[in-house]
Amino acid sequence: MLADQHLLRIPGPSPIPPSVQRAMNQTMIGHRGKETKELMQRIKPRLKPVFGTEQDVLIVSGSGTAGLETAVVNTVKPGDEVLVIVTGAFGDRFVKICEAYGVTVQRYDVEWGAAFDPAYIKAYLQDHPTIKAVFATYCETSTGILNPIQELCKAVHEQSNALVIVDGVSCVGGVETEVDAWGIDLLVTGSQKAMMLPAGLTFITVSEKAWKVIENNEQARFYLDLRKYRKSLSEDSTPFTPALSLLFGLDQVLNLFEEEGLQAVYNRHELMKNMTRSAFKAMEIPLLTADDVSSPTVTAIKPADFAAEDLRKVIKREFNLSVAGGQQHLQGEIFRIGHMGYCSPADVLQIIGIMEIGIKKIGKNIELGQGMRAAQEVYLQQEVLA
Amino acid sequence: MLADQHLLRIPGPSPIPPSVQRAMNQTMIGHRGKETKELMQRIKPRLKPVFGTEQDVLIVSGSGTAGLETAVVNTVKPGDEVLVIVTGAFGDRFVKICEAYGVTVQRYDVEWGAAFDPAYIKAYLQDHPTIKAVFATYCETSTGILNPIQELCKAVHEQSNALVIVDGVSCVGGVETEVDAWGIDLLVTGSQKAMMLPAGLTFITVSEKAWKVIENNEQARFYLDLRKYRKSLSEDSTPFTPALSLLFGLDQVLNLFEEEGLQAVYNRHELMKNMTRSAFKAMEIPLLTADDVSSPTVTAIKPADFAAEDLRKVIKREFNLSVAGGQQHLQGEIFRIGHMGYCSPADVLQIIGIMEIGIKKIGKNIELGQGMRAAQEVYLQQEVLA
Repeated sequence: MLADQHLLRIPGPSPIPPSVQRAMNQTMIGHRGKETKELMQRIKPRLKPVFGTEQDVLIVSGSGTAGLETAVVNTVKPGDEVLVIVTGAFGDRFVKICEAYGVTVQRYDVEWGAAFDPAYIKAYLQDHPTIKAVFATYCETSTGILNPIQELCKAVHEQSNALVIVDGVSCVGGVETEVDAWGIDLLVTGSQKAMMLPAGLTFITVSEKAWKVIENNEQARFYLDLRKYRKSLSEDSTPFTPALSLLFGLDQVLNLFEEEGLQAVYNRHELMKNMTRSAFKAMEIPLLTADDVSSPTVTAIKPADFAAEDLRKVIKREFNLSVAGGQQHLQGEIFRIGHMGYCSPADVLQIIGIMEIGIKKIGKNIELGQGMRAAQEVYLQQEVLA
Repeated sequence: MLADQHLLRIPGPSPIPPSVQRAMNQTMIGHRGKETKELMQRIKPRLKPVFGTEQDVLIVSGSGTAGLETAVVNTVKPGDEVLVIVTGAFGDRFVKICEAYGVTVQRYDVEWGAAFDPAYIKAYLQDHPTIKAVFATYCETSTGILNPIQELCKAVHEQSNALVIVDGVSCVGGVETEVDAWGIDLLVTGSQKAMMLPAGLTFITVSEKAWKVIENNEQARFYLDLRKYRKSLSEDSTPFTPALSLLFGLDQVLNLFEEEGLQAVYNRHELMKNMTRSAFKAMEIPLLTADDVSSPTVTAIKPADFAAEDLRKVIKREFNLSVAGGQQHLQGEIFRIGHMGYCSPADVLQIIGIMEIGIKKIGKNIELGQGMRAAQEVYLQQEVLA
């Protein structure tokens, strides 16, 4: 096997574009000097369209989980009652963080592989007016679901004063996200998925309504105190030493978004999703999620007549292609392909070409080229529509 | 289109492995210091197996053409008579260099797309005992031919005292090359093809018989004087300032060759050739060369019912996939896919998946997935044989 080639197609961390890698290699600068201030000034306005917001997007140095914890410690306190929508492993993480802080959690568990129902939440809030915040996952990485966040916001805001707090880690940057128009009170995302960077930054937007809660929240916090980040960002700075090389990279990521165009970025992800799904449908291998609620960034496949882990092993061994397995009770039941960030329709063709070989090798009698043809047809069809 | 993605599949320069790129970024060192001497000591013995020789492999900073000129100015002088075998654009280059130095050139022109015939050369030398050297091209980049160098050496050495001088630029490192066993008197290759480096180094092997000619050759030369390189290399040094970053990269390329294993590298190239050729055969699109003389590093396709340039344009525009067009009289008639160096069967699947879309888009009615299936079958078949 070709040494030094790694085809990284897990649902994040995702591959880094070469120009971003080069940008991150730039010489280190002082984090309190003029150059860093100018860097922040370049980044600040250009992050907003990615989140669909006029608010400043706060940047905390830390992984996605640091972002989720930031969301919790700034908005709720021990004894508060919240609703956490659990559609997979990352909804579960919100529960764990809330519980670690003594917050009273009501869970709304949805079968893994399905999306939540905003109507259910509206009804729930009607019966439970004490709920202070609703925590939801936009793209549930563990299943490939894209939950209906816009409809959730509408349902919650019509019914209650609860904040809508959203984990957008595995999709923001790859799917349309309209924080202001939809009314997301707090959105968190990470750098290592559709944002095309290594892990290490988390991005947070906060609505005016959420700021009022945050300003008055008595929960103890220091590093993750969003008030500090807001104040510093208003001065084009950061409260603590920033992960500078990642900010160098972010500056270049924003260049790439602007070069391609954000709408084109979203269209590309939609196309990659459709190509991937069509290929497996053509091979008659079941998908975990339904078409209308599947994420443009990750696809979960639930084979009926072969072991997901056998396939993962053979494609890793022969092509060094990494895709993810299942988490928790879906371990061994599914495999997940990440098609996000620095990933193109050309890369999806490569993944499918390899998958067909792998599936054949582990003994399933598919017709080679059939999945490929379906993906190619989707590509050609999309061109006709465009 | 995904910004910053460039699929470079011309027959060289070829893509650089990430670890080689990183190695080349290492801090500059003094070229007469201990570190450079140690670098040369690491490189020197490990280059030999790539060329199949016990001789020291000389390294000249310059492109492949500098290497070809080095071959000429060291072995022949004005008035010498040589035979140049021309199977394409790079045979032609040997002619031009020889003529620039007042060497009397006899051309043996072979139709572009065919290999030369060693028996013809043997007969020619019998009739022309004054020929001092025979110049040949191993892989003719302009057509994708792999010429029979082993048989050429046998034919020449049986018949005459002429030197056999070989341009191996576009294949050495990707195909078996046995300088000593075959009796190649002087072999030249470049860094930017199967050697997985940027252009800027040329590698030269010299037989004992060739050294005798070189030592006594009166042709004026300075920078390209191989005697200087031999003397310096015996002291683990270079006569002039070396292209150090490329030597850092070469050190890592040798690591990658050793990690994969040279025989595995050659098998991978053979497999990539067979996958590529099978795909176009399945699509009933003619190949320029015959199976038994085609190069494992580059494949030329000569479409009968569509314009090669139309295909090149559409795959470049939609996928940023670069393949080469034809040179000289084959311009517009063929396109050439490089599958060498940092290129895997996974990459070939990607190329074919894209090619099928491109061919369909320019209006040829192929069955999508058919070329892909043929390539996949070759991959699976090869595994059975291995």
